[in-house]
Amino acid sequence: MRAELLVHNLSRLATLDPGREDPLGELESASVGFRDGRVIYVGPAAHAPEADRVLDGEGCLGLPGLVDCHTHTVWAGSRAGEFEERLAGASYADILEAGGGILSTVRQTREADLETLAGLARTRLRRMRARGTTTVEIKSGYGLDVATELRMLRAARACADTVKVVTTFLGAHTIPAEWRHDRAAYVAEVVGPMLEECAPHADFIDVYCDRGAFTLEEGVQILEAGRAAGLKLRAHAEQVAHTGIAAAAAELGALSVDHLERIDDAGVDAVAEAGAVACLLPGAQLYLKDVPPPVAALRARRVPMAVATDLNPGSSPVHDLWAAATLACVLQGVTVIEAVQGITRNAARALGRPELGWLGPGSAADLVVVRPPPGEPPTPAAVIQHLGGQHVEAVVLDGRRVH
Amino acid sequence: MRAELLVHNLSRLATLDPGREDPLGELESASVGFRDGRVIYVGPAAHAPEADRVLDGEGCLGLPGLVDCHTHTVWAGSRAGEFEERLAGASYADILEAGGGILSTVRQTREADLETLAGLARTRLRRMRARGTTTVEIKSGYGLDVATELRMLRAARACADTVKVVTTFLGAHTIPAEWRHDRAAYVAEVVGPMLEECAPHADFIDVYCDRGAFTLEEGVQILEAGRAAGLKLRAHAEQVAHTGIAAAAAELGALSVDHLERIDDAGVDAVAEAGAVACLLPGAQLYLKDVPPPVAALRARRVPMAVATDLNPGSSPVHDLWAAATLACVLQGVTVIEAVQGITRNAARALGRPELGWLGPGSAADLVVVRPPPGEPPTPAAVIQHLGGQHVEAVVLDGRRVH
Repeated sequence: MRAELLVHNLSRLATLDPGREDPLGELESASVGFRDGRVIYVGPAAHAPEADRVLDGEGCLGLPGLVDCHTHTVWAGSRAGEFEERLAGASYADILEAGGGILSTVRQTREADLETLAGLARTRLRRMRARGTTTVEIKSGYGLDVATELRMLRAARACADTVKVVTTFLGAHTIPAEWRHDRAAYVAEVVGPMLEECAPHADFIDVYCDRGAFTLEEGVQILEAGRAAGLKLRAHAEQVAHTGIAAAAAELGALSVDHLERIDDAGVDAVAEAGAVACLLPGAQLYLKDVPPPVAALRARRVPMAVATDLNPGSSPVHDLWAAATLACVLQGVTVIEAVQGITRNAARALGRPELGWLGPGSAADLVVVRPPPGEPPTPAAVIQHLGGQHVEAVVLDGRRVH
Repeated sequence: MRAELLVHNLSRLATLDPGREDPLGELESASVGFRDGRVIYVGPAAHAPEADRVLDGEGCLGLPGLVDCHTHTVWAGSRAGEFEERLAGASYADILEAGGGILSTVRQTREADLETLAGLARTRLRRMRARGTTTVEIKSGYGLDVATELRMLRAARACADTVKVVTTFLGAHTIPAEWRHDRAAYVAEVVGPMLEECAPHADFIDVYCDRGAFTLEEGVQILEAGRAAGLKLRAHAEQVAHTGIAAAAAELGALSVDHLERIDDAGVDAVAEAGAVACLLPGAQLYLKDVPPPVAALRARRVPMAVATDLNPGSSPVHDLWAAATLACVLQGVTVIEAVQGITRNAARALGRPELGWLGPGSAADLVVVRPPPGEPPTPAAVIQHLGGQHVEAVVLDGRRVH
């Protein structure tokens, strides 16, 4: 069959096809053909089909379009002043006390209308797409009231014109100032009217279960309510303190448990047993000067690992999934193979989207073409080793070139 | 006077002009005019001169062209395999033992001709320039023989068609394999024939004085020889072990002492006394999982701090000076003001180039125009806080737009 678009003669192609034997499903001198928004050919350049348009991949590495499976891309306002205050010695507690931190983003997001929120997110996503990210999970959680949570999810879905979007309802991100006197009532609000309004606009429900946020019991209650409303589950787990939510969420069927800086061995066992993905967020570790999650234990128990930017205005203002992959290697001890799986196939698994994060018959038609740093081979190792050295030559989304 | 190019109505301009009172010399609603390769106007947009070409700076932050004052941008070959081996558990000692590490770059660089070396470096520099860097210091040190050291410096100077280049002779980067049996003879080679051939092509001499490299006595001998040959001085100092080279180099008149992870109080005092710049290299700290230099002590003694990428194929494959500035903040405790001074005016001071790193009458005609991350104000804090979120709108080099 004739292709509409052929990315031809890539020096290296990491297909991530689970049907291939090596961990990244790599081919040399490979081509990928697209037609009608589908992949119609992945294989040797020598046998590539004829095509209307041909893009030369010589010298480049091809990968499936990258999947960023944990972000907070919809928000309004700035926390740059807080960044300065923290460098000047203020603690996060001081900043929260003064109305800063997440509550300042909540205030600024509540004041923004749908068009503003979608416009800001779309600009962020366009830049991320130009770096090769074609699918982005986006959470609510800066509204913490019915109207704003709903508006955030609508803004996120409006961005589906730019990248593939997966939405997550995170009404349980923190307890808003006006409910601090009665946290049980806020939980009732989340699992009641907020969930009812938001569920039709969300794919997942998430909860931030931690010291200063929701308890294990509240977390379980919220996830169970989300599941009953037809949502898939994920959780912010074991970041600041160990609460047991990773194991509990995995047992409830969560597709991913994220952060895990303080997960214990029993938690790792439970996550392994349940088959959940562990999502690593090295940007947050970097900015919060935190400890790494127990990558060796996760690896030993064969827990699939994803890597995401955690893009948000405070603890992880990281826009570049390549940088997240590099940081996962140097700060968390992830291998190159794990990092590449983490921003493609395993991230797709964390989102319950088996058609994403690999290239082959039946996969999504998303591809990124990267020219490695000068003098480097077009290998995953060379592209991940260098911070800011990759040059994204082309991005294909749904079979169409978008960069 | 009519401008050839006017960057007009920048929402914020950090001039770094030392004649202004605030630490970044900031103006709002400012314009910068260029003519004949010079700055002819820096001031309020309302009084800007007429111009042949106008570039709209609304919403953007302007800064002097960035100065990357410590790099090893000229090299051939790849060390990506080594990156993988280290993540899989190999130590740097294992890798050196197997002929890897810096000695592998030396081998690959010796095999590359002038055109190859200049071509690789030029591509790296073009990408760095597109991110706003207009001046780059480039060291030799992967030749370690007369012919290759000379070829590296020639390759570096050939790149002056791309950015402003400052060259540094670093024949004393390490002791090459073939001289390990007689290190005194290698030092004699460096200060004898190698220095004689290289000095005409270099602005600086540098020495890597550390455990496993050169001793304090050898370092002093090499710097003194360089000074006698008319070169300015700088040193790789106190990175792996404390040797005393920071104090010794500063007392010899070095313009900068670089790394400083293990400088002691007496060293900080000596550097402060001598007026040398402390050059921080957070990329190396990140990749080597090292400790930070004592930034609070340097600040207390009013030592000017520069921040550089240390771009090299092994310990700091960092191509982006913005990322280095962000890492200096989050890993080393540098403030936003210090980070901005560190990649502009203080970096220029480290290179002995007082016309660089600021904007005003008599400064170089180099400017970068940055659009902040979506929704953020056009301030230095917002631009430095976000990793990979800046969008460089334009770069002016010698009064001409080059990006």
